[in-house]
Parts: sequence; C-alpha cells; structure tokens
Amino acid sequence: MALFVQKYGGSSVADAESIKRVAKRIVDTRRAGHDVVVAVSAMGDTTDELLDLAAQVAPIPAPRELDMLLSSGERISMALLAMAIHSMGFEARSFTGSQAGMITDATHGAARIVDVTPVRLREALDEGAIVIVAGFQGFNRDTRDITTLGRGGSDTTAVALAAALDADVCEIYSDVDGIFTADPRVVPRAQKLTHVSSEEMLELAANGAKVLYIRAVEYARRHGVLIHARSTFSSGEGTWVLGHGMTLPAGAGGPTVAEGEEMEEPIVAGVATDLSQAKITVTGVPDVPGKAAEIFKIVAKSGANVDMIVQNVSAASTGRTDISFTLPKEDAAIALRALAGEQSDVGFENLVHDDQIGKLSVVGAGMRTHSGVSATLFEALSVSGINIEMISTSEIRISVVVRGDDLAEAARVVHTAYGLDGDAEAVVHAGSGR
Amino acid sequence: MALFVQKYGGSSVADAESIKRVAKRIVDTRRAGHDVVVAVSAMGDTTDELLDLAAQVAPIPAPRELDMLLSSGERISMALLAMAIHSMGFEARSFTGSQAGMITDATHGAARIVDVTPVRLREALDEGAIVIVAGFQGFNRDTRDITTLGRGGSDTTAVALAAALDADVCEIYSDVDGIFTADPRVVPRAQKLTHVSSEEMLELAANGAKVLYIRAVEYARRHGVLIHARSTFSSGEGTWVLGHGMTLPAGAGGPTVAEGEEMEEPIVAGVATDLSQAKITVTGVPDVPGKAAEIFKIVAKSGANVDMIVQNVSAASTGRTDISFTLPKEDAAIALRALAGEQSDVGFENLVHDDQIGKLSVVGAGMRTHSGVSATLFEALSVSGINIEMISTSEIRISVVVRGDDLAEAARVVHTAYGLDGDAEAVVHAGSGR
Repeated sequence: MALFVQKYGGSSVADAESIKRVAKRIVDTRRAGHDVVVAVSAMGDTTDELLDLAAQVAPIPAPRELDMLLSSGERISMALLAMAIHSMGFEARSFTGSQAGMITDATHGAARIVDVTPVRLREALDEGAIVIVAGFQGFNRDTRDITTLGRGGSDTTAVALAAALDADVCEIYSDVDGIFTADPRVVPRAQKLTHVSSEEMLELAANGAKVLYIRAVEYARRHGVLIHARSTFSSGEGTWVLGHGMTLPAGAGGPTVAEGEEMEEPIVAGVATDLSQAKITVTGVPDVPGKAAEIFKIVAKSGANVDMIVQNVSAASTGRTDISFTLPKEDAAIALRALAGEQSDVGFENLVHDDQIGKLSVVGAGMRTHSGVSATLFEALSVSGINIEMISTSEIRISVVVRGDDLAEAARVVHTAYGLDGDAEAVVHAGSGR
Repeated sequence: MALFVQKYGGSSVADAESIKRVAKRIVDTRRAGHDVVVAVSAMGDTTDELLDLAAQVAPIPAPRELDMLLSSGERISMALLAMAIHSMGFEARSFTGSQAGMITDATHGAARIVDVTPVRLREALDEGAIVIVAGFQGFNRDTRDITTLGRGGSDTTAVALAAALDADVCEIYSDVDGIFTADPRVVPRAQKLTHVSSEEMLELAANGAKVLYIRAVEYARRHGVLIHARSTFSSGEGTWVLGHGMTLPAGAGGPTVAEGEEMEEPIVAGVATDLSQAKITVTGVPDVPGKAAEIFKIVAKSGANVDMIVQNVSAASTGRTDISFTLPKEDAAIALRALAGEQSDVGFENLVHDDQIGKLSVVGAGMRTHSGVSATLFEALSVSGINIEMISTSEIRISVVVRGDDLAEAARVVHTAYGLDGDAEAVVHAGSGR
C-alpha cells in the first residue's frame, strides 16, 4: 500500500461529468489498495469569472478580500468531488487550505508556503478516508487570514502535500499525456518522454514548456518528491520527473522498457519554444563602464523581468554600442516607459521595441559531458536559413532568439537534428488549457 | 455613536450593481458616525445553483460536503462587498462563520448556534473597520467542520451577532418596506406597521408572513435584540420589532408621530394569509379513547409537521368520527403513505386529501384584554358568504381555514372589519423574493 497525492487542474473538473470522471479515477486508485490525497483546482473558468466580478465592484480589489473571494472556487470543486466519491460508496473528506495546515506568509495573491502541518489529513487517512484538499490556497498564522499561492498554486499545493506526508508519488493530472520532447502542436514528431530529470524539467518549464509550473518542480526537487505528470483522459503512463538520485519506480517506464534494461542517456531531453517574449534594443549607448548596470537597474526598478541580454561589439569610430534584452511581452510597456524617462541621464540614442521574436531552447543534462551540442543547433538553423539574433546558455541549456515566424520551422529542424523525432505523429488532445 | 448590525439578503446583493448599492448604504451608516457589522447572504440564485451542481454529482450529497459547498456562496458575496466598500475609501474586512466565532452544534444543514465569540470582529471594529460576516454559516468545535444554519440562516446570523456584540439595533434589509397589516399583494389597503411586538411577529411569521424568519425573531426575543425590518431600495423607516419591555428608539416611528404622543394600542396587529398548507381528513375513525393519539403518533413518525387539528362530533349512530388536520403541502405525501400503511391497525375508513385550502390568521396582543375579537372575524366572513372549515386559536391569534379561492377576499373583508385599511393602496415592489 502506497500513498498517492494526485492533482487535478481546472479543466479536469470543469463540469459535473468531469468531476464524476475524476472521482472514478480516484476511487480506482483507492480500490487498488492505496491511500489517496487529492489537490484540486477551481472548476474550469471559475477563477476568471470571480476576477471579473471583482473588477466590476472595485477597480483595484483589496488583496485580502480578493484572496477570500478566489479561495471560494476550490471550496466548490473540492466539496463536489468529495460528494461524488462519497456517492460511489467511499469515504471522502474535503479540507480548505487552512484546515489542511497549508501555512503561508502573508503575501496575498502570491503567498509562499512556510510550513505544512497536515494533522487533520493524517487523521482522515488513518480513518480510511480519501482526502480532498483545496489547491492554490493557504493560511497565514499571524493575520489568521486566507491567502492564495498565485500562478501554478495547485501544482505547488500537491507537491507540498506530497513532501509533508512523505507520499510515494505526486501525480499531476492535466489534459496532456506528459512531457514531450517538444510541443506536439509545433513539432508533430515530438515524443513523450518516459522520464526527465528535475533540473531539465526546470529549464524546459522556464523556457516555454507549459505542463508543469517551475515553482512546483523546484519545490519537488528541493524536498525529494517524485512527480508523475500524466493525463486525466487516458490511463497510460505519463512522464516521471526524477530528482537527484531518484530512479524510475519498479514497473514504471511503460511496457516497452524491459526490466533492468540499461538506457543510454540522451544528450538532449527536449526542445522548448516560447512566443511570449519581446525584445527591446537600446541604441547608441555611450561605451563607458557602468552604462549596462545603469540601464538594467532602471528596468529592474520598473518591475519588468529581463531574460536574455546581448551587448553588441562597440563601433570604435563612434564610442557607442547597442544593448538588447528580452522580457515578457506584458512587461515591455513599463520597461520602455522607465527607460524613456531616463534617456538624457543615461545618454542613449533610441529605444527599439520588437514583439515578433521567438525563443528556442535546447535542454539536456548530457550537455555537461558532451561537446559539440551547440554546433548541432547552429548548423541545423543555418542549413534552414534561419537567422539567430541572440544566444544565451546555461549549464544544461542553449537558447536562441529567432524571428517569431521562423520559430516552428526552427523547432522542427532542431528536433530532427538531435535525433528526437518519433516514428509517428504525436496525438494532441482537443483541450489545450490547463 | 451606535453599533448597527445590518443583514442583506440574496436579492440585495444579486449582482455587481446591487453590491455597490448596498456598499453605499453601509458607508452612509459609517459616515453618520456609527460602527457597522454586516451579515450577508449568497448572491441571488447562487445557493440554488450550487444545490443543482451537487445533485448532478451525487443523488444524496454527503451533508458535511454540502455545507462546505454552500458556505462558499457567502464567501463570494462578502468578499465582493468588502472590496466595494474598500474602493469607496473605507476599511472593510470580511469574515467567514468560523472566523466570526459563530459556534454551532454539528447538525449539518440545520445547525443551531451554541455560542458566539466575535473576538476578531471586535478587534476589527476597534481598528475602525466595517465588518462583513458570512451569513448562514458556522463552525463546530468538536468536528472542526463548517456548518450551515438552514432556512433563514442569515437573519439568525445577524440577530446572533447583534446579541453577542450588544448592538443598538439589528437592521434586516429585504426588498419590502417592512411588516404590513397584511400582504399588500393580497390586501391592497394594507398599511406598514410602525412597530410590532416580537410575540405578534412570531405569530405572523409562523402563519404566513414572509418578511422575517421565526427563528431569528425568536432569537431576538430571547436575547433582547431590537430588530428594524426595512427595505434595501428605500431610505424610509421600516417596522420595529419590539421585544418585552422595549420601546421605540428616540426619533423612530417616522415623521408623522409626534414626540411623546400616546398611541392607542390597536387590538389587531395584522392579518396573515397562507396558501402553503393542505388538509387531510381521516374518516370513520372508531370513537374510542386513544385513537387520535394513535393517528398523530403515526403522522409525527413520518416526519410531517401537523398544524391545525379538528375532530368532528361523533355520530352516535355509527360510533365513528372524522379527524382533520392541516400540514405543509410538501409533507402530505409522506403522511398519507404512513397512515395508509396502518389503516387496518387504526381501523379508519378512508383518507381524504385536500390541497385547495387557505389559512387566514388574525394576530394581536390586544386579544388578551379585549373580548369579541373572534366575533368580528366570524361576522365579517359570514356576511361575505365565506365558509369556515377549521378554527384554531392561541392567546394572541385566531386562525381559520377557508377555501383557497376565498382566501384573498376573506383577508380583505377581515382587514376592513378590524379597521386596518389605509387611506391609499400600498406600493408593492417588483422583486418578491428574499
């Protein structure tokens, strides 16, 4: 008998039928003899509808009250899910974030988990109940107020519960089959990965892969939680996310992997694509020490998150240089406004905004020990006539910025160049949201 | 500076516009220098929608989970109301039933309040905040579970808060202007009462008047809470419900009542009408001791609530008699089934079901000291040719059952006979629900 933590997102519990399907899935796990703790998101578009109502009554809703409002969404889905399980003849109990002991700091809308004290969950498990916990929400001890965890909160709830309860696995259910070598909608021959290391998963998630949230993967890595990302709509295996020193559970990896078979570590785990960034170029920057620091201090102060940075070689004749950086499209306006306000102080000539870029990242732990990984990337793009505008690297990742229109083609040729193509086209499910 | 507790029902907070209107009303009270604690119901049809969802996932929803589900409704309305107040520049904080210290027993769906410990509410008031509390919900200390109070729960929440906080007044807002001498939709010349005693209000509520719930009035009477029933849609005075020994607050009673003017106590406070009951007649009951007890034991065991009972004079020739009783229409089926199942044991001849009856009640504390009150009632009905089928009385009430089709006419002639008619027709607001 094992302890499973399962997380179901909003699209998995969008209506009464979906809730009953999820309930059956949970009951199946229980029937197989396991303990089950479930973290559940609000139904479908509930959160957006509540945000819309809030906007109607207050232009800038009070953060404490916004958390009180939004936390009602999971309360609805978890109670319905517990009822549905109950009516299948199994004992189920739902718990709010505070009842579950999800203790956070007091940052409304983006609270950080500081402690998990799942006393009531353990009691319920000991009494044989299936436990349903509201995802996304917590409780601050000092203010005694309800908090929410922000984007990807329910994934984080599930992983934190798995860590606190020492669960055998944390299953993150969504409407995709697992982690793929690339987005199957972009690269039709993308293959589902049997497993991926948590550091690779972090790089993939940070660079455009949307199946798991960075924050949950980071929490799992730090607390040694085994994640299994899989689909609500199929019973097949998904992708295992292995932290440091973890191995695939016995029997996992699908029927095609023979017991004890030694698998060669692939150099590259996957190719991530991201169309959500814009590029800003600051032209004619005086080429004197400290100017770059000055510029990025201004940007940081505006609240914009800078990703890649490239400084061109200075033209000796002018004593001036260009600095380009990428950032989320929605942050571009505030960064541009902040820079324009300081133009005379910094002494640059112009600001150029470009939101037609695409970012392609190749991620693989094997890069540490293999040389020539980047050469394969540059060669493949060059043969296809795709121009590289910016490059950045980490220990296990190479990212390039290309024209947005070229991104899909770039992903396909790079996917092929690293030998990642599958024999058949991947099946893409209708639902694309999470 | 006084402390006002205000209760707003679902129709008062049905959408964003309504919420903003209620927020303004609350802020006006605060601006006048008073402390305000608000008990709020779920928005419009939220509760029905949640019940509908529950029915879709489980034929008989688990009571604990149903309470968890339904309690999310007030969480939404109270957070939105607090935001709306906040955006008008006033500090407002919302509290769930458990945060507000609304301690109940563990009876899910119909919990009774056992204690109110409004520590956090007092803190918030001391800090100058307007306090918003979720109506209808509480918390059980032993199970640590969320409970709901059942029908009329938000009225009861408001009165219980007013008692615990020693408020100066508990204002119950709805879409009607107050308590009338009769339902203005039935009796156009009905007049709004300036005040009514709580015992009269109890009888009126128990016999068909829908503005206040019996349970809240009973709680107010027991704990000495002054209730002011008034309309969300007008600024005029409503009706004061005075407990034992209470007098109208200084200035209350509207501009037409001169200070210190001695008002003659009217004999009759109002006429209540009720079309929600059915009549069951058990015919040919053996006229031996203990038969009535036997019949009503069976009915009680079925769960049906009996109201009026009439036993006909026995026909000496047959040694048999008929027993009639009234009960809520929705209880008729279970009572009939239970009686039919015991027909041979009890030895009655037949069961007659009649759901076309109407009940008219005349309520007035003055009945205690005035004679001839019932004669006026019987005379008025007789002159109009309306037949009386059953009669029951309490110390301050006379009720009669007539044909349902005759009820409106009966109410009008009785209203006139007791001198209750106003000079003009009462204004009836569009919304009729609470």
